[in-house]
Amino acid sequence: MLRVVLIGAGNVATCIGRALCRQGHQPLAVYSRSQSSAQSLGQLLGCDWTTDKRALPAADLYLVSVKDDAIGDCLQGMSFGNGVLAHTAGSVDMRILEPYAKHIGVFYPLQTFSKSEEVDFTKITAYIEAKDNVSKNTLLSFATILQTKVREVDSARRGQLHLAAVFACNFANHMCTLAGDLLNEAGLPFEDLLPLIDETVGKLHRLPPVEAQTGPAVRGDQGVQQQHLAKLDQQKAEIYRLISESIYRHAQL
Amino acid sequence: MLRVVLIGAGNVATCIGRALCRQGHQPLAVYSRSQSSAQSLGQLLGCDWTTDKRALPAADLYLVSVKDDAIGDCLQGMSFGNGVLAHTAGSVDMRILEPYAKHIGVFYPLQTFSKSEEVDFTKITAYIEAKDNVSKNTLLSFATILQTKVREVDSARRGQLHLAAVFACNFANHMCTLAGDLLNEAGLPFEDLLPLIDETVGKLHRLPPVEAQTGPAVRGDQGVQQQHLAKLDQQKAEIYRLISESIYRHAQL
Repeated sequence: MLRVVLIGAGNVATCIGRALCRQGHQPLAVYSRSQSSAQSLGQLLGCDWTTDKRALPAADLYLVSVKDDAIGDCLQGMSFGNGVLAHTAGSVDMRILEPYAKHIGVFYPLQTFSKSEEVDFTKITAYIEAKDNVSKNTLLSFATILQTKVREVDSARRGQLHLAAVFACNFANHMCTLAGDLLNEAGLPFEDLLPLIDETVGKLHRLPPVEAQTGPAVRGDQGVQQQHLAKLDQQKAEIYRLISESIYRHAQL
Repeated sequence: MLRVVLIGAGNVATCIGRALCRQGHQPLAVYSRSQSSAQSLGQLLGCDWTTDKRALPAADLYLVSVKDDAIGDCLQGMSFGNGVLAHTAGSVDMRILEPYAKHIGVFYPLQTFSKSEEVDFTKITAYIEAKDNVSKNTLLSFATILQTKVREVDSARRGQLHLAAVFACNFANHMCTLAGDLLNEAGLPFEDLLPLIDETVGKLHRLPPVEAQTGPAVRGDQGVQQQHLAKLDQQKAEIYRLISESIYRHAQL
């Protein structure tokens, strides 16, 4: 039985902790700087919790899920013995962990995490990186417990993956925000777009996105595009023009 | 029983025709300029088909689903008697139909249509516009047959809706194309992003998109953004910068 300590009590730690419990693998303990966060996650998972850096129990895996720029400060003053220390961040180099432990690695589950929502780890991929075989085997065991698919990537490729996720998740979501603004101006509810959005994503399961592309930009339909640009404020018009050009360019490749 | 003639045999006409048949309301006939298109849709729906503008049967509703800039040419030389003539386009003003029939209207089902895929009309909204009560009642009867939700909008608001759909569907899809490019550079498959994309859209069913927004731009995380910009070519960098600014601005509202 892999002994796991969660460092951090935010969205990622909460979702991973709950998934471990669902698999019957309770974490050993939760650490957080904030007592209320540590306590509430510890109670949720039915395990020990602490705010004392010196009180971490001996474990096989210490999983750090705190904000990217807080990782160093957080680990300062902790001891990990022969345990593996791994972080869960997309854009942070594994080497940030080198000053703190002998066995280090990364376990980056590619998903958007909210405390309130259960994550189905069997459907996602965790991108792992390990400095040595001890770290690698521990991370693979951990992935097996979560029943998560695993792919090994180095920090550079993981960074690229995170960048791709920003486009596909964060930027795609913002396109929906702008669509919502436009509907709002016409007194129409955002919900009316949901079946269209669902179908747009449904197609991505069957076709590469460049083949699923529809609309005036890919058709090179200048008439409709001019009509649309005339309705947009300067900032939305700039986005419209830039993305439409990019769509058209991709269609010519 | 509403007598319907479909004018056009493309994606929209095919999906509407099949949905009518599923509801036990076979169209009376299909018209298309192209014999092979008219014939294949007629046979698919088990109804008459013609390429002769003078051979349209008397009907209650003539539904035109041809390319936006082909509507005028297509209708030239047809007679609609007391039937209602309606088109299905997002960005075309209803008044384009005025020269051709007494009773006119618009029936714009907000969805992306492909011949190969069944559309569930019970889940979508049709935006209707009618010049008079005859048109309106006929379009409402038609929506009832398809079990489609209905909202009345004028041509200006419908244009705004189509513009919003370009952002939420066409532009969001292109964000996935760019993400696919970035993954490809790292030798990673697009499929790995699908669970993340599915969850991004899943959240839109529960939260307004501005509240569902995550990522470095909304957090104002300049460190990660600079790291990302350094990895992008000029065109992607320009898109990244513009959208990130827009995300940040929306978060301050």
